[in-house]
Amino acid sequence: MPRLRVALAQLNPVLGDLEGNSDRILDAAQRAAEQGAQVLAVGECALSGYPIEDLAGRASFLRACRQQVEELAVRLTERGLGELIVIVGHPDGPHEASGLAGDRTPSAIAQNAASVLQHGRVQARYAKHHLPNYAVFDEYRTFIPGRDHVVLDIGGCRVAVLICEDLWRDAGPVAELKNAKPGLVLTINASPFERDKQQVRLPLVQQRAREANASLAYVNIVGGQDDLVFDGDSLVVDASGTVVARAPQFEEHVLVTDIDVVEAAADAPPATVTLEPRTVGGDVLEPTINEPGPVEQQVWNALVLGTRDYVNKNRFPSVVLGLSGGIDSAVCAVIAADAIGADRVHAISLPSRYSSEHSRTDADELAERVGIRYSVEPIADLVSPIEQQLKLSGVAAENLQARVRAIVLMAASNMHGHLLLTTGNKSEISVGYSTIYGDSAGGFAPIRDVPKSLVWKLATWRNEHAAAHGRTPPIPENSITKPPSAELRPDQTDQDSLPPYEVLDPILDAYVTRNLGVDEIVALGYDAGVVSDVVRLVDHSEWKRRQGAIGPKISAVAFGRDRRLPITYRPSQ
Amino acid sequence: MPRLRVALAQLNPVLGDLEGNSDRILDAAQRAAEQGAQVLAVGECALSGYPIEDLAGRASFLRACRQQVEELAVRLTERGLGELIVIVGHPDGPHEASGLAGDRTPSAIAQNAASVLQHGRVQARYAKHHLPNYAVFDEYRTFIPGRDHVVLDIGGCRVAVLICEDLWRDAGPVAELKNAKPGLVLTINASPFERDKQQVRLPLVQQRAREANASLAYVNIVGGQDDLVFDGDSLVVDASGTVVARAPQFEEHVLVTDIDVVEAAADAPPATVTLEPRTVGGDVLEPTINEPGPVEQQVWNALVLGTRDYVNKNRFPSVVLGLSGGIDSAVCAVIAADAIGADRVHAISLPSRYSSEHSRTDADELAERVGIRYSVEPIADLVSPIEQQLKLSGVAAENLQARVRAIVLMAASNMHGHLLLTTGNKSEISVGYSTIYGDSAGGFAPIRDVPKSLVWKLATWRNEHAAAHGRTPPIPENSITKPPSAELRPDQTDQDSLPPYEVLDPILDAYVTRNLGVDEIVALGYDAGVVSDVVRLVDHSEWKRRQGAIGPKISAVAFGRDRRLPITYRPSQ
Repeated sequence: MPRLRVALAQLNPVLGDLEGNSDRILDAAQRAAEQGAQVLAVGECALSGYPIEDLAGRASFLRACRQQVEELAVRLTERGLGELIVIVGHPDGPHEASGLAGDRTPSAIAQNAASVLQHGRVQARYAKHHLPNYAVFDEYRTFIPGRDHVVLDIGGCRVAVLICEDLWRDAGPVAELKNAKPGLVLTINASPFERDKQQVRLPLVQQRAREANASLAYVNIVGGQDDLVFDGDSLVVDASGTVVARAPQFEEHVLVTDIDVVEAAADAPPATVTLEPRTVGGDVLEPTINEPGPVEQQVWNALVLGTRDYVNKNRFPSVVLGLSGGIDSAVCAVIAADAIGADRVHAISLPSRYSSEHSRTDADELAERVGIRYSVEPIADLVSPIEQQLKLSGVAAENLQARVRAIVLMAASNMHGHLLLTTGNKSEISVGYSTIYGDSAGGFAPIRDVPKSLVWKLATWRNEHAAAHGRTPPIPENSITKPPSAELRPDQTDQDSLPPYEVLDPILDAYVTRNLGVDEIVALGYDAGVVSDVVRLVDHSEWKRRQGAIGPKISAVAFGRDRRLPITYRPSQ
Repeated sequence: MPRLRVALAQLNPVLGDLEGNSDRILDAAQRAAEQGAQVLAVGECALSGYPIEDLAGRASFLRACRQQVEELAVRLTERGLGELIVIVGHPDGPHEASGLAGDRTPSAIAQNAASVLQHGRVQARYAKHHLPNYAVFDEYRTFIPGRDHVVLDIGGCRVAVLICEDLWRDAGPVAELKNAKPGLVLTINASPFERDKQQVRLPLVQQRAREANASLAYVNIVGGQDDLVFDGDSLVVDASGTVVARAPQFEEHVLVTDIDVVEAAADAPPATVTLEPRTVGGDVLEPTINEPGPVEQQVWNALVLGTRDYVNKNRFPSVVLGLSGGIDSAVCAVIAADAIGADRVHAISLPSRYSSEHSRTDADELAERVGIRYSVEPIADLVSPIEQQLKLSGVAAENLQARVRAIVLMAASNMHGHLLLTTGNKSEISVGYSTIYGDSAGGFAPIRDVPKSLVWKLATWRNEHAAAHGRTPPIPENSITKPPSAELRPDQTDQDSLPPYEVLDPILDAYVTRNLGVDEIVALGYDAGVVSDVVRLVDHSEWKRRQGAIGPKISAVAFGRDRRLPITYRPSQ
């Protein structure tokens, strides 16, 4: 059986930084070549970052991408890596926009491409056939679908090249390629993390390998990009679906594997591109298989990576957040410290006249345990003049406190360049239990995709993880166990306004994430009155939420972005 | 030549209010029948409103739509309108989502349909073939494309039914239907207004009529839906492209026209649905042709309609806005008064220690001329305690003033239920010349799609329009002529930070709206240094803007929503 030594480089691109990403690919090529690799594949759009959204409509951007690919081929040769076959994902264009009458805003002018580089030039180019346009994906907006297949003959090994969604389609390219009898299917991907992705992605890869009767090599990108976190987890399975190599999650890695490739049948498909691989010396490599950790660890690592990349790729020197003594801000502070180091995290305790003693002491305690920078800024004397001049009462007075806190935090942001983190969780944001321009203010929302019940689990896991490694658990036990409260009036708790979180969270999951109707949720066994209360809160809050941004969240739990609903609408189903 | 009496009802649906929209269609059917119409067509998704965004993924919503269509057919018959042929646009489903492996978030499960109702039931149903997925459209996210054509034989008149984008495709359905030889092409549409739409839509309709050698009836919806304004402007052209009837813009209207239909050839296409029309008595109707007004008037009316529908469909009792004495807030106040009446508009003057005398007097003057509710709330005593406790200076101190104003306005919103209007224009928002959680705070942004130079033109047009009708020009001349200033420090003007608006606006148009690269803009004749300054400001502000929402704007000028760009990215082209 012929054998190929394939390197899968899961890299962390910076979106739009074509030169920097190109350097990253060159470094990976160097490391792959040192390990004797014959083929190197990097992820979907690894040259540009993913998703590129409306940059796809800029002809100047697409020309720069194409030029960068051609330069990369030359630079590989200049470094003595010309024999290495490098498969690189990038937006390709500009292409002609098609078929729209009149002088209209053009449709997509780019393709989502994989270029095959060797000997200083592009030897073949594949354009993605299937464009996902659901959940977080908008590729019909950005790309023109490709129509042709690309099959490589690499020293007698027949390799089919696919891109991401191509693999997901039943009766799609894998089935279409059956007659070409590839020995290896190589897919480059930009596949975001979600809590249960493990249960979907690996079985899919295994199923397609068996369908194709071929080995399958799957390379993903890694890193945070706004709402999304790409987790890597690149892997190789054999034709029976058995995992033969697997990269770690949430970090850059070059996975080099010897792949036994089912021998190519004599009848090569007409468009086959023949490439001569470099020769590999030495022994067969010992394959490495990294198993993912428990789900809380995966989610935690996703939140840390998403936060780190948002802060660093946007070149913020530091972050600031309000520390209330409650669980949400405590978890956000620890995520931030894990992401960028405690000395770049500035926390401010902002006690009002309604704040309890434990709010202050729990915040103090957390700051000390984690070693973040910490100050206290009482707001009573800032709130009173406004409350009195405007004669505020009720909810308006409660909101005022949250808004004065936002003013203090944004002032710190403006004075020192900190990014303001907003610390709301998915449950409270879904039902609108927050103040517009108050606690919802902030440029980045680390736990906005995390339901409250999972926030507690993550806190517990993080403390246990620290203890297990002989370190101080960062989160004070009291922040985990005390009843949650906004403390905007005396003796307030969340459950004055909301059902218990163990009831609320599954109803939110059914309504917001799984898109079930009211009747269907009641049929799951929930009280009809509670369901209709929750649904009313959500419908109202989605409308309200549009009044005040919360910044990107990290999609670490549910797959997909928040629902995109009309603001102006009368829900009736 | 056979003749059909066709009613085109351009209705203003409330999104999701299926019963209310159904009532609207019934009323239109009544009026159409009274004028002897044989066929009534209403716009695309007139039963649901448009765009429905992720409501398309709710099976319960789609079942409710389908049920409402069936009930509408019955209710028409019950009212004695069973013979009237009614063509109604609605989302249809749930359909099977297709071809995605694994237990994934489903793709679209709806079609964008036109149902043909007569005698109490659905006689035929067409599903839109071509799904726009550019600019403001996301239909690949929401709909499954249809594949079949529907041709009706109505008393010997052969009528082809299409939906919106189907008409825009070169070599699309109009060409495909050539062999069916329809005498009338009837398209139902949800086509949003933009400044130059007149120059595109009418010529397209004329061109397709000539291509089909058929009369063409085009019915649009009307009304505001979040960012979008649908302008109606429904029309009928004959086979030579000559306009024979045209509805007014920006209002509901039932346009009833006798259409001479080219006789159907003998060879009916196989899937033709034959319907017997009711008989028409009396004389041939005199056709009505409404010509659109000048462009400033169209834009003004679009802004007024968009604001009115946002306020009323969302059931806000009233609006509030800060009145600075400058042109932007003056124009927004007049738009609001035109939209919902002066007594529902609450304006607050918020002078600081840097405010000039004319800021106050120009605001007073405007409030008096327009008759809106008006109060003055000085902010100096609210700003000082914060500035002193936090020791703020520079931009942080400037932003503080804007944020305290937002607190005052949001307090009024929370106390009285007003919707807060934010008054920024497209030029300043594009370059980030505003304060997050300050002047950018607000639930709706009437002029966010209007460049500053057009704001002045609109103000001048509105004053002249008032004078021409013997009314007081609403906007004080001084607000139009004085140099624009944020007044956040002594003697500040916009041009301390920005190029003159007559230079800035065309560069913004080239970069943001037309997606040109830096080199291409310089090649248009602009100074390279100015272009690169502006581009840097825009890139920075798009990133900054994501930190604080501004609420929906009205797309009244450029076609399309704001660019959707990654937040985390390094622009290099």
